[in-house]
Amino acid sequence: MTDAPLVAGIELGGTKCVCILARGPEQIEDRVSLPTTRPDETMAGIERVLDGWGGFSALGIASFGPISIDRHAADYGQITSTPKPGWAGTDVAKRLEARYGVPTAFHTDVVGAALAEARWGAAKGLADVAYATVGTGIGVGVIAGHRPVDGLTHAELGHIRPVRLPGDDWVGSCPYHGACCEGLAAGPALAARTGRKGQEIGADDPVWEGVAHALGQLCHTLVLTGTPRRIVMGGGVMMGNSHLFPRVRSAMTKSLAGYIALPEVQLAETFVVPPALGDNAGPLGAIVLGAQALEEHLHRSYAGG
Amino acid sequence: MTDAPLVAGIELGGTKCVCILARGPEQIEDRVSLPTTRPDETMAGIERVLDGWGGFSALGIASFGPISIDRHAADYGQITSTPKPGWAGTDVAKRLEARYGVPTAFHTDVVGAALAEARWGAAKGLADVAYATVGTGIGVGVIAGHRPVDGLTHAELGHIRPVRLPGDDWVGSCPYHGACCEGLAAGPALAARTGRKGQEIGADDPVWEGVAHALGQLCHTLVLTGTPRRIVMGGGVMMGNSHLFPRVRSAMTKSLAGYIALPEVQLAETFVVPPALGDNAGPLGAIVLGAQALEEHLHRSYAGG
Repeated sequence: MTDAPLVAGIELGGTKCVCILARGPEQIEDRVSLPTTRPDETMAGIERVLDGWGGFSALGIASFGPISIDRHAADYGQITSTPKPGWAGTDVAKRLEARYGVPTAFHTDVVGAALAEARWGAAKGLADVAYATVGTGIGVGVIAGHRPVDGLTHAELGHIRPVRLPGDDWVGSCPYHGACCEGLAAGPALAARTGRKGQEIGADDPVWEGVAHALGQLCHTLVLTGTPRRIVMGGGVMMGNSHLFPRVRSAMTKSLAGYIALPEVQLAETFVVPPALGDNAGPLGAIVLGAQALEEHLHRSYAGG
Repeated sequence: MTDAPLVAGIELGGTKCVCILARGPEQIEDRVSLPTTRPDETMAGIERVLDGWGGFSALGIASFGPISIDRHAADYGQITSTPKPGWAGTDVAKRLEARYGVPTAFHTDVVGAALAEARWGAAKGLADVAYATVGTGIGVGVIAGHRPVDGLTHAELGHIRPVRLPGDDWVGSCPYHGACCEGLAAGPALAARTGRKGQEIGADDPVWEGVAHALGQLCHTLVLTGTPRRIVMGGGVMMGNSHLFPRVRSAMTKSLAGYIALPEVQLAETFVVPPALGDNAGPLGAIVLGAQALEEHLHRSYAGG
């Protein structure tokens, strides 16, 4: 690990932003938190921190979304259609890449968390992992062969429309889809349906049955992508209500009905697991993103491309 | 194209098997069809054809599934849990790789078709593509960065459970899941529900509404994976009932409800399209798979790995 490069990582979240300078979880040289306020103020704050560091050989940014991750797109590096005031259309990655002149990676916070959990956490050693966070929304990051699965854009699988629990026709809380997975199982859905926050709802409340059913459908869908060897589930709703884990596993297993007959999936207790890195998953994910950008840069240089 | 390597490709289907020797769609040197019968007989027939060719520098196999594509798994190269008599547990790829000693790739027929359509067909020039075949079942192949998206296994997204059309509670025909997408929209579902075959059902029959709705949900889910820049839909049900294309596009667009605000997706007519290669997609997909195996072999040799 002493040979790991020194990387600057930024986890840009909706309420706060964490900057770390690290080689890995055991070698964090600095860590600074800033509130996420207006874009100009927040970006200037990030630059003050990074200006003070120097000496890092790559930069990784794990951001709240939706974001443009396609390097060929005109809006690459920007936060795109967020409802967060002032942030839609804000350039994050191009500005920082130009300022520091090091290989820079830009991806979602959930892909960052997935990479970190796969490298050092609850999915350590696995090349193919999905990470789902269930909090104010549902975000999903998918990793295959140690790399984010990218194409047109990043995954948004929290918005799949799950088949409904028989007899449940609640309209859901997603402003786009109503009863999509996020509209049935994220924090705002719980609040809208019960008038209470997740942590105030007893484990025996019937509302959890629908939540577990929707999240079981999310896991069913993730299994059918063929990709993950493990699904890590975090976020406030999961972590504040650990009774959900056995329920989600059971809903997934019942829904798959034996179709994917692989031991990894059938051993649901080790297939759907909580994260292991806690609050560090996001910033450490940014470190992995930066290290991968450096690796690809070196590979291109070596190959003469 | 004159520099493209000569590759032997095998499309192993449930009823027939096509072997081709080619460099690409304009340079097919030979093409032989065999019936798919017992495994020993079929495999021996394939070997007789390939023994007669010689001179090819790679081998690609695009097979009906489910199959084991994980090179680290003990059952790599086999057909796994198929109901097709005698075929479960049949080794296909290891046997042929050992016999011909050339770089060999083994993947699903739908991934093969996706690769061929992305290289020469309806998604030409696109690095990130999904191909869905709607026939006796629903198979889905997903390509990102010109390569199959792999992890634990291959995609099985035909078995997602779509939200139901209001008022429709038909139980579906999938032996595992009942009303999953395949159980609602594939050929056997049409036959079970109407007593007729797809091509005998008029475009104004109400059964199509549920089929388009389920396939629209499949496209919704594929969009949310973040991967495809285009979805190619083929198979007997789609090709025999071209009225489905506008209906599926419309169901997808309605379901997404503006959530993925990217022009590629919003221009649904060019986002969900029929295939362009016809019967050649499968065998040509095997050629792409073989060419990629050769490329990776050369890359590893070059990198000294």
